[in-house]
Amino acid sequence: MLIIDCHGHYTTAPDKHTQFREQQLAYLKDPLLPQPAYVRVSDDEIRETIEKNQLKLQRERGADITLFSPRASAMGHHEGVEATSIEWTRACNDLIKRVVDLYPDNFVGVCQLPQSPQVSLTNSIHELDRCVRELGFIGCNLNPDPSGGNWTSPPLTDKFWYPFYEKMVELDVPAMVHVSASCNPCFHATGAHYINADTTAFMQFIQGNLFKDFPTLRIIIPHGGGAVPYHWGRYRGLADMLKRPPLDEHVMNNVFFDTCVYHQPGIDLLVNVIDNKNILFGSEMVGAVRGIDPQTGHYFDDTKRYIDALKIADDQKHAIFERNARRVFPRLDAILSARGL
Amino acid sequence: MLIIDCHGHYTTAPDKHTQFREQQLAYLKDPLLPQPAYVRVSDDEIRETIEKNQLKLQRERGADITLFSPRASAMGHHEGVEATSIEWTRACNDLIKRVVDLYPDNFVGVCQLPQSPQVSLTNSIHELDRCVRELGFIGCNLNPDPSGGNWTSPPLTDKFWYPFYEKMVELDVPAMVHVSASCNPCFHATGAHYINADTTAFMQFIQGNLFKDFPTLRIIIPHGGGAVPYHWGRYRGLADMLKRPPLDEHVMNNVFFDTCVYHQPGIDLLVNVIDNKNILFGSEMVGAVRGIDPQTGHYFDDTKRYIDALKIADDQKHAIFERNARRVFPRLDAILSARGL
Repeated sequence: MLIIDCHGHYTTAPDKHTQFREQQLAYLKDPLLPQPAYVRVSDDEIRETIEKNQLKLQRERGADITLFSPRASAMGHHEGVEATSIEWTRACNDLIKRVVDLYPDNFVGVCQLPQSPQVSLTNSIHELDRCVRELGFIGCNLNPDPSGGNWTSPPLTDKFWYPFYEKMVELDVPAMVHVSASCNPCFHATGAHYINADTTAFMQFIQGNLFKDFPTLRIIIPHGGGAVPYHWGRYRGLADMLKRPPLDEHVMNNVFFDTCVYHQPGIDLLVNVIDNKNILFGSEMVGAVRGIDPQTGHYFDDTKRYIDALKIADDQKHAIFERNARRVFPRLDAILSARGL
Repeated sequence: MLIIDCHGHYTTAPDKHTQFREQQLAYLKDPLLPQPAYVRVSDDEIRETIEKNQLKLQRERGADITLFSPRASAMGHHEGVEATSIEWTRACNDLIKRVVDLYPDNFVGVCQLPQSPQVSLTNSIHELDRCVRELGFIGCNLNPDPSGGNWTSPPLTDKFWYPFYEKMVELDVPAMVHVSASCNPCFHATGAHYINADTTAFMQFIQGNLFKDFPTLRIIIPHGGGAVPYHWGRYRGLADMLKRPPLDEHVMNNVFFDTCVYHQPGIDLLVNVIDNKNILFGSEMVGAVRGIDPQTGHYFDDTKRYIDALKIADDQKHAIFERNARRVFPRLDAILSARGL
């Protein structure tokens, strides 16, 4: 059995990469500054940041391969203008490609998209195509709120998003719904904005008809589905009140939750309430919560431990760790199959 | 043992009352219309709406007394101007007072506040004082986002809110954090906005120092605390990462969750993860989800059943059903004690 972590970010990218972003944003504020040029990071710099962090933790915790995307909180779709987002996104995705090329057994690429508030998805369509066809990526992170906490885009079920979904279907890649940093002081990024976005997206799917229009579209809602599994009765009841079909027919053929829930009772509930076929192993590491849980003596985000501890059949664990990810990400399955895995 | 439902709304208010609101909003849009006057609802009209709904369900489900407030989704703090909110709020609270006077054994009043976006809390302070001192109310619903989904107010830990907290402390009444309808198409009111607000408020409390400044302030986060108990590991870990004290010391002497979680696994998790002293029985009925769960044959929002089914000591159930509410709402305790209860 392979252990596939569907949710990992390059949160430890080399300083040069991060400095480029700082310079890019500074230049936007003050055009008298020198226009920043991207300084290529060396392979050794990448190795240094990966081997001491994601690769080390992968090995220690016993995962085999991570679906790896740029740092979500740094996507910053609300910063700058359309060209800012395009330039930064290409740099981030190209860096992920280099990680994958250095460690092809350990990482597969998932791309950031060059979204911007009030801008069509044309740039994102082009970047998704480039990342999948040219860089070999297998999925993307789609931000339902590129305004960074002001929620000025239409719901994910709106026709605004349809051209992007058409490209996803054409390429047969799923999207993880993932917001970036919050510029709204009400919302802490990882403590409120992320979880709220997950909850919000799920409710939009209940209200809309997205999966009737795109029956093969596949969406991962991270962080254990936000508040949704905990409030599963509320969502089943709301679907009924709103005269929508039952969730199993209406949403759950297309929507999947990861296991980024950082304590055993949460994972227990997730696996108890949500169908086994809809759960993908994920850790979000190195990510939102980096410390050790004093109650267990283990890292909060060592989510494999929680799955290992579940009293469910081995076959169900196999689905969570490997099979569901291979089904939701057919291009991952093709890569692994070509390797005889 | 008394069964105290800490979360009930007058969602079935008589038509005349609802029509006044419609006329009020229509007049704002078209000042050529006649200025609406509030038409007093008769006692019989109140009896009709209460006896067929809240009182009937209270009896059927075995609750004794409901902390009763105006319909939250109709507070509509984002509609109209400051004077609109004042007029509408007084009408709503006065109507609650009449329900309480007709059924003093079954209902105790909790007030709506005349909030408006970008407006100070002076009006809310006055209305809270009026409702507690003159009408005998025991608590209030505080909207962290009077903009209705645009989140333009500062976090609840900001000094902006402090004058209101001073009044709460002076009167010794708690607040339930409760948003109203959403005018942002991204957020379904009861399926996203409510739950997000709960999660958001909790994270704000972690980030801030509110309860250091107001050690006796008490806040109820409804809907089972939003996403928080499900993600309890994340919040414990974030508190640690942000160098905040442990949640038990920093937040959980002042914050309480109700039991408006509409399925057994959710309630099981809530009671498993959150200290018994922090859980107050609530149903939110007649509220967000009105249907029958096909999996159980019972109403989704008949939350008493879930508590009854818990495998915890009777003394712990007693705390959830009665003792915690009497501790968090001292004015409720005084009312009940005066009746020998």
